[in-house]
Amino acid sequence: MTAPLHEARPTGRGRALPDTQQGMRRRNLARVMHTVSAEGPLSRAAVASRIGLTRAAVSTLVDELIRSGLLEELGPERPGRVGRPGSALAVSGHGPAGIGAEVGVDHLAVCAIDLRGEVRARAVRYGTNRGRSPRPVIEELTELVGRIVTEAEHEGLWPAGLAVAVPGLVARDARTVVRAPNLDWHDTDLGALLPAGLPLTVDNEANFGALAELRLGEGTPRDFLHVSAEIGIGAAVVVDGQLLRGTRGFAGELGHVPVRPDGPACRCGGHGCLEQYAGEEAVLRAAGLEPGEDRVGLLAGHASDGDTAVRRALRDAGEALGIALTGAVNLLDPEVVVLGGALAGLAPWLLPSLEAELARRTAGPACPVAISRLGPEGPLLGAAHSVVRAVLDDPAAVAGRG
Amino acid sequence: MTAPLHEARPTGRGRALPDTQQGMRRRNLARVMHTVSAEGPLSRAAVASRIGLTRAAVSTLVDELIRSGLLEELGPERPGRVGRPGSALAVSGHGPAGIGAEVGVDHLAVCAIDLRGEVRARAVRYGTNRGRSPRPVIEELTELVGRIVTEAEHEGLWPAGLAVAVPGLVARDARTVVRAPNLDWHDTDLGALLPAGLPLTVDNEANFGALAELRLGEGTPRDFLHVSAEIGIGAAVVVDGQLLRGTRGFAGELGHVPVRPDGPACRCGGHGCLEQYAGEEAVLRAAGLEPGEDRVGLLAGHASDGDTAVRRALRDAGEALGIALTGAVNLLDPEVVVLGGALAGLAPWLLPSLEAELARRTAGPACPVAISRLGPEGPLLGAAHSVVRAVLDDPAAVAGRG
Repeated sequence: MTAPLHEARPTGRGRALPDTQQGMRRRNLARVMHTVSAEGPLSRAAVASRIGLTRAAVSTLVDELIRSGLLEELGPERPGRVGRPGSALAVSGHGPAGIGAEVGVDHLAVCAIDLRGEVRARAVRYGTNRGRSPRPVIEELTELVGRIVTEAEHEGLWPAGLAVAVPGLVARDARTVVRAPNLDWHDTDLGALLPAGLPLTVDNEANFGALAELRLGEGTPRDFLHVSAEIGIGAAVVVDGQLLRGTRGFAGELGHVPVRPDGPACRCGGHGCLEQYAGEEAVLRAAGLEPGEDRVGLLAGHASDGDTAVRRALRDAGEALGIALTGAVNLLDPEVVVLGGALAGLAPWLLPSLEAELARRTAGPACPVAISRLGPEGPLLGAAHSVVRAVLDDPAAVAGRG
Repeated sequence: MTAPLHEARPTGRGRALPDTQQGMRRRNLARVMHTVSAEGPLSRAAVASRIGLTRAAVSTLVDELIRSGLLEELGPERPGRVGRPGSALAVSGHGPAGIGAEVGVDHLAVCAIDLRGEVRARAVRYGTNRGRSPRPVIEELTELVGRIVTEAEHEGLWPAGLAVAVPGLVARDARTVVRAPNLDWHDTDLGALLPAGLPLTVDNEANFGALAELRLGEGTPRDFLHVSAEIGIGAAVVVDGQLLRGTRGFAGELGHVPVRPDGPACRCGGHGCLEQYAGEEAVLRAAGLEPGEDRVGLLAGHASDGDTAVRRALRDAGEALGIALTGAVNLLDPEVVVLGGALAGLAPWLLPSLEAELARRTAGPACPVAISRLGPEGPLLGAAHSVVRAVLDDPAAVAGRG
């Protein structure tokens, strides 16, 4: 069991760069890209001092990244900075683009972002996908992807990869939807249905939502639990800036944590799972409302109008979330819990009972709960960002592909 | 939030080796040590082929490790191996030693292991530590440590560090016991009480137990949940061979996962926590037994004699464990749950209801549950192994210190 710790260094996408001169060069290219991405525009000298390499070494790396279209020079730095003037470097707005896609229960969405994280093209199509077989849904999605890629190309970008967010469990092959109960999809290989050519990553929507939070949230720490909901309830565990995936890729199934072990039967086989109390359908049922297409809007509307049945249903859901999160916080000790997806829109009515439950079950200070500003946009943006992050993590892998 | 991924590579102990030639050399020393430790005796050529470096590069590294007393040559390899004969390399049995210590509720223990993992000296002192103030307990422990260090030195070893297992929460400084309820210790800096001179690591007993499982368990995977108990119930989350520690170092508090949210009040502030159903004292109470010193032996004895009250109490504890573990498995998706510490000795009576609960709450195949062969020895051995692991992770840091 004593495997060497340092056999390989995984990158964001799970590729390993070996510990050789060539691997070191590739990692240093990544360090330059990440530094300019996080802090740019920066001069070569500033990059060198930040990553602890010589100015000459950095210049060689920068030249390679400019040739590959990943960095660009903005011309001389503005006066007023300390040190001799140098040409400021920025991440290119005309290089690789990340294509993000989302298969929602009630919509399809696709977007393209550039390496700077700007959304450059976006399309959404509403309509239920529940009970539709995967092929026509993915055909529709492919058509949207084609349209967005064409738009991005008109902007001088080229697609570096496609990442698809789904409301379900995804195998560690990052292609196969093992179980998406609210679509009624099982063991569906999306890789076989999507067009070949673009590097593909399929992942759970909560995981991509967490990635968006990490990249776009303000002050999001590197250890957090991201809880989201569409019809089911999912969570993503982020540890030191990385997703914890689990052995099969199924980590984060907060929706099936037992809240009241003798509670109602759940489709997962369990009893009294969180989803039976705080899933959208359970809340609608408790509130006496019919499930329609815009369920969050419906609940939020009634709650702000003072509908006591809806407010009570949301309060009870918040309490159940608080109980399940107490367990999760005890196990994981995150710095913060972030409520995203549909939960963000319902936070005003969920949060009081949720926080009270967390506080009364915790001896010391309770784990803080934050609301995602990205809300339901998180998974789509996170998917696109995952492609950009893979480019930043190993720029050498895409150099010259454009 | 876009911190560079590759700024530094943490080692097992949290030190970072920079991505420079010097850092690369240190990492390659570690790869040689880990390879020989896991697969030795091995020739230089075999090491070179396993880690993908040239024979010449490996020879330079090996010579340095031999000079530092970390590796030794066993003479020519036995015949029958493929390739030309070479001198077989083994991890030294006369170099650095890991000193492990344990502060239990009812005992103190210290041991020394060599780099090969062999226990070379060991001492235990029984007697309750509950309610004693930290100073006299640590004075007693220090005396035991001194005795074991002397014994190790007589065997030609020198202490590379001291690791202390405690039944409580330890801050991320790896010195301060934040809360050890069953000792009644709070915010106790063990670094100030233990003799200076030896590098010190203090950690929770479940974390060290998990490390022992990883190093000494047979076929333990690199993703597992290690559950242990003395008086409280603790767990350690191991992801890809590394402990998940949490923001404050408090991850793994399985004992305070709510099992029945309206259940009895717990000293943590919560209600119906797992510890209220499956902690040793709860089980003794449910079984109608008086808590003595050998609580596990008492319960195991009565249970094997067919005492129905004790068997029922253990069955109920197993059920509660099954409910809490269903939540943990949903969140973490480990490959296996390992029961260690006191739980290992009670497994015959806990396991049936525990596994039944996990199975009936899981749609697919339930997460397997294994019993630790190390049982209550795990934390002490794991503590000593953590010192050895730190040496293997960065041999350059101890070279020449002996």
